[in-house]
Amino acid sequence: MIKVGIVGGTGYTGVELMRLLARHGGVKLTAITSRKEAGMPVAEMYPSLRGYVDLKFSTPAEAQLENCDVVFFATPNGIAMQEAAALLAAGVKVIDLAADFRIRDVAEWEKWYGMSHASPELVAEAVYGLPEVNREQIRQARLIANPGCYPTAVQLGFLPLIEAGVVDTASLIADCKSGVSGAGRKAEVHTLFAEAGDNFKAYGVGGHRHLPEIKQGLDRASPTPVGLTFVPHLTPLIRGIHATLYARLTKDVDVQALFEQRYANKRFVDVMPAGSTPETRSVRGSNICRIAVHRPLGGDTVVILSVIDNLVKGAAGQAVQNMNLLFGLPEGLGLDIVPLLP
Amino acid sequence: MIKVGIVGGTGYTGVELMRLLARHGGVKLTAITSRKEAGMPVAEMYPSLRGYVDLKFSTPAEAQLENCDVVFFATPNGIAMQEAAALLAAGVKVIDLAADFRIRDVAEWEKWYGMSHASPELVAEAVYGLPEVNREQIRQARLIANPGCYPTAVQLGFLPLIEAGVVDTASLIADCKSGVSGAGRKAEVHTLFAEAGDNFKAYGVGGHRHLPEIKQGLDRASPTPVGLTFVPHLTPLIRGIHATLYARLTKDVDVQALFEQRYANKRFVDVMPAGSTPETRSVRGSNICRIAVHRPLGGDTVVILSVIDNLVKGAAGQAVQNMNLLFGLPEGLGLDIVPLLP
Amino acid sequence: MIKVGIVGGTGYTGVELMRLLARHGGVKLTAITSRKEAGMPVAEMYPSLRGYVDLKFSTPAEAQLENCDVVFFATPNGIAMQEAAALLAAGVKVIDLAADFRIRDVAEWEKWYGMSHASPELVAEAVYGLPEVNREQIRQARLIANPGCYPTAVQLGFLPLIEAGVVDTASLIADCKSGVSGAGRKAEVHTLFAEAGDNFKAYGVGGHRHLPEIKQGLDRASPTPVGLTFVPHLTPLIRGIHATLYARLTKDVDVQALFEQRYANKRFVDVMPAGSTPETRSVRGSNICRIAVHRPLGGDTVVILSVIDNLVKGAAGQAVQNMNLLFGLPEGLGLDIVPLLP
Amino acid sequence: MIKVGIVGGTGYTGVELMRLLARHGGVKLTAITSRKEAGMPVAEMYPSLRGYVDLKFSTPAEAQLENCDVVFFATPNGIAMQEAAALLAAGVKVIDLAADFRIRDVAEWEKWYGMSHASPELVAEAVYGLPEVNREQIRQARLIANPGCYPTAVQLGFLPLIEAGVVDTASLIADCKSGVSGAGRKAEVHTLFAEAGDNFKAYGVGGHRHLPEIKQGLDRASPTPVGLTFVPHLTPLIRGIHATLYARLTKDVDVQALFEQRYANKRFVDVMPAGSTPETRSVRGSNICRIAVHRPLGGDTVVILSVIDNLVKGAAGQAVQNMNLLFGLPEGLGLDIVPLLP
Repeated sequence: MIKVGIVGGTGYTGVELMRLLARHGGVKLTAITSRKEAGMPVAEMYPSLRGYVDLKFSTPAEAQLENCDVVFFATPNGIAMQEAAALLAAGVKVIDLAADFRIRDVAEWEKWYGMSHASPELVAEAVYGLPEVNREQIRQARLIANPGCYPTAVQLGFLPLIEAGVVDTASLIADCKSGVSGAGRKAEVHTLFAEAGDNFKAYGVGGHRHLPEIKQGLDRASPTPVGLTFVPHLTPLIRGIHATLYARLTKDVDVQALFEQRYANKRFVDVMPAGSTPETRSVRGSNICRIAVHRPLGGDTVVILSVIDNLVKGAAGQAVQNMNLLFGLPEGLGLDIVPLLP
Repeated sequence: MIKVGIVGGTGYTGVELMRLLARHGGVKLTAITSRKEAGMPVAEMYPSLRGYVDLKFSTPAEAQLENCDVVFFATPNGIAMQEAAALLAAGVKVIDLAADFRIRDVAEWEKWYGMSHASPELVAEAVYGLPEVNREQIRQARLIANPGCYPTAVQLGFLPLIEAGVVDTASLIADCKSGVSGAGRKAEVHTLFAEAGDNFKAYGVGGHRHLPEIKQGLDRASPTPVGLTFVPHLTPLIRGIHATLYARLTKDVDVQALFEQRYANKRFVDVMPAGSTPETRSVRGSNICRIAVHRPLGGDTVVILSVIDNLVKGAAGQAVQNMNLLFGLPEGLGLDIVPLLP
Repeated sequence: MIKVGIVGGTGYTGVELMRLLARHGGVKLTAITSRKEAGMPVAEMYPSLRGYVDLKFSTPAEAQLENCDVVFFATPNGIAMQEAAALLAAGVKVIDLAADFRIRDVAEWEKWYGMSHASPELVAEAVYGLPEVNREQIRQARLIANPGCYPTAVQLGFLPLIEAGVVDTASLIADCKSGVSGAGRKAEVHTLFAEAGDNFKAYGVGGHRHLPEIKQGLDRASPTPVGLTFVPHLTPLIRGIHATLYARLTKDVDVQALFEQRYANKRFVDVMPAGSTPETRSVRGSNICRIAVHRPLGGDTVVILSVIDNLVKGAAGQAVQNMNLLFGLPEGLGLDIVPLLP
Repeated sequence: MIKVGIVGGTGYTGVELMRLLARHGGVKLTAITSRKEAGMPVAEMYPSLRGYVDLKFSTPAEAQLENCDVVFFATPNGIAMQEAAALLAAGVKVIDLAADFRIRDVAEWEKWYGMSHASPELVAEAVYGLPEVNREQIRQARLIANPGCYPTAVQLGFLPLIEAGVVDTASLIADCKSGVSGAGRKAEVHTLFAEAGDNFKAYGVGGHRHLPEIKQGLDRASPTPVGLTFVPHLTPLIRGIHATLYARLTKDVDVQALFEQRYANKRFVDVMPAGSTPETRSVRGSNICRIAVHRPLGGDTVVILSVIDNLVKGAAGQAVQNMNLLFGLPEGLGLDIVPLLP
């Protein structure tokens, strides 16, 4: 059994990791750290885990993470970059669910995240953990930068078009809608039920941290840097991201076939039949990204609809998928979960 | 007092009309028809109206609508076109909240609505009731085609740019999100709480009936026909539309100033300060459209955010605004309602 | 015009007071204090008030509340008790929407609220502002203790039975469900959308602060102290309280008639027809309490269903009703609002 | 592998059965009938099942249910009673998720369900499938009456008290709150999102069909017929039932210990630590019933909080638990699912 530690297990990505790992079959959860909640049984904070997780939150000192085979960081940005080096030196593999290692241009990262990077040398080593793009590199990696939720949905939606060179990459539009759990389990006013319920709004229109991450991923596939307008919206959903993507076709291709071929052997990307409109709930609780392709009225604008569960394929599920690859396990181990509908 | 009749008062636009008219001050509600519910007190179906509306639903025969000064049709599409002519002949003004008279091209209308038009001659006479565009024609009209909800939010957002000739009208994008009440109070599976709750999806990507209505409105302001991609989404909101509009600037103008000037004296359009992100709840229950203007990262893509309450400015409130204009009343009479937040 | 000040206008009862007072007709809002937000336009925090409230939040020093005719405290518990005396001394009437003056037994108050009372002498003077019980005393008062939300719904539901002496007061049960706005606009984890959404739970089963307030109100009408079990629940509603009340009849009376007589001239209590089940949305945004009375299967258990909007009849609306009484205005001035449905 | 058929697979209990059976491990799903949707792939109606269920809906004739080992009826009331006899005669075991065989008193059943019973002789044979009460009889049965959702939550909450003879059974109160999926996937107005969202109401106060079922279950454990007041409420939840149960203690017992002992070896009933308030989401998607026990202020009223997922322990999950027992499989096979939180 692979020995697993989790740093920062009190947030939504932490509890979601535990939900998945508790029934994974190939791992043993050995420690979950939280300075603030050390000593509290995990299942007291999250009764959904009663009978599944018997651990208590522990301090980093108690946790002895260096004895783990792999450690997940389900922490705020800026923590993993301080602690990853020591773990790697101890032979522990590291999967960071935060943003510390996602952006290869350290100066760019520092601009968007407003802090100095503590381990710039690791940024170069880290592998961006989007298996549908980087499967082989992930298998060889020690340090995984697990993608953001918006970047997962948007890249999976745009990449087939960009890789095939069939769209005008100068003016891509990603209109994205996220459930409120994407903001995490922090006490904040704007994500209160009475604020976010029965309400809809855009945010971060002038610039969102996921923009450079998405752009970096799309640029890799494009001969010239892409021009991308990215507008995220806060939606009265608990879980779910719906990305509505717009691009202009420069060649008359069979877009449906293009997507089906691109994801032919990708277990966690489901290209739906032509004409479909994927619902966020159709992936609730699962690691699947469902995509549908449209050309409204047969024009040259292609509309891609891409949905994921932000806490699974957009965070903890993708992290487990990466872990499976890191350790040579079947890619879908522990992720064979039927979405919860309704 | 203006004598008012409502045809088809059992749906959401009907109850919303009654909410507004009950406290309007210048009207007397004389009849509300419903073949199916004739005899039932309105306040029995809608207890929110207890003490405000004492009428019973009546049959069309009982209603004697020809004695009204104005009749609102809060009916499904295809009813007003059969009944408007007789009322107009009796000197009654007619405001249709459905789509019967919105599209001037009758063949186009018949294509999208799937029926033959019963009164094509009235289509030419009808005035499209968007007061921020057609105020003077509305004042002189007998027959008002009250705009659809999406068309109201989208036109108010795009028109200043198109009228000023500062955007590329060949590839406009309207990514729109609607609350579920927009689908009406019909028993249907896809709008059940357990289907639409905690769920998000696009629909009508291949073609939605509001597309030709929006296009017609934008074309009027454009030297050449616009190219518009319109993608509506069903959102777990009760009320509210959020339109996120994308266009490419062809001239470097002060977009904020452009909007402020365009709507300077328009009481029900609120151009918010630069950088704002209007929330749907900030207009809940009110006739206001709030708009914010963005140029992400200073590029040439302009993003317009436009929010309305689909049942008020998107339906019943705009209908009352039109009625006020028809009868020379103050435009905002009965519509001076502070939005309900939270 | 009555000059009105509000202390602590940033929370939900504050914004709700402003919504009501902005269109009241008999008052002029002169100051809204917030130490933290001083200088910020009120309408910047609450865009729903754009065009209705032009004030900025001010510091207490700037506010010159002593020049007001009446001051509302929309503050956390423990503020009004420190500041009311000076205002009263300056001839200003005070309405406290918090709990400082609700419990006449100061020791009991201190036990439940965990602080020493700063003005015990004012507790005796304060009038409990439930107009359907204390209308005449309210008219003569200087200081009003505005009731809590649960206490309003529960007392209005139980009092007719207790006053008439027709139920066993030894074992009353109040099973209450509240919308999340009842917890206020504080950044807390348990009221986040992702915590409170699609979720239902009881809380405070072992003892809730509203219990002694309810008990005090019921005891006044009962020859012997009542025995009350009160279980509040957090419900995925924004606004609304639904109290389901159970009592055992000791006399065979016409309960429907009893309630209709008790509230015959009470404008804001609506006794619904026998067999009704009031919905919280039927009072959304309004100051009405709707009540229905049931005797399931004709047995001796009576079930009372009582619904209010917790922010209106349960807070700001009742406070305005009290203000109207304090100043000899029509009791319903500014409160003639049709509930927002759907 | 056990060959399984489902009659009426288009509703919520049907899709939930498929979610559970798709990953059960010991069964093979061979047919799902729907007269109306025959020929449509199941995964087209329920995209959440793409990749998990490859069947199409079939007509009853095509389905050859007599070749199954067990058939689930996920149908409206009144269907199973017509079709069960033939299947039983063919040696097929039957589990009815509807109400046809739940009430032993056929006249009582006919009164509440408004139809004549087609197979009264089978009512006597049917075993009520609440495994925490009837495990041994279930093992021997051919025909299972799967309990209703409210009855499951209420019986599991009340039975320990009644079996132990420690409460006054003459005046039990069950105040129950259900998510909207409990009403099924039928097109109806009152369960529309715009009707049931942000709204709370009681219903069926005068008499609900689950009342006789609950009463029958409690009566079996009580020396005298119980007196029960049952008030269900419709709550803006998708899934979940929260039963708040009130009884008066007649003996001073350790209620916490009583419950812990009663459910000591019951895998799917979780008695939480004293002072807990179980959340519906803590069982979302799982077959667990969580119960907490309170004595507010140490009085003689005991308050039991009991939560289930109405579609799992309240329907499909319990049906699978019963199937496992019927076929001698481990009781929890296929039901080892961590609840989905948030």
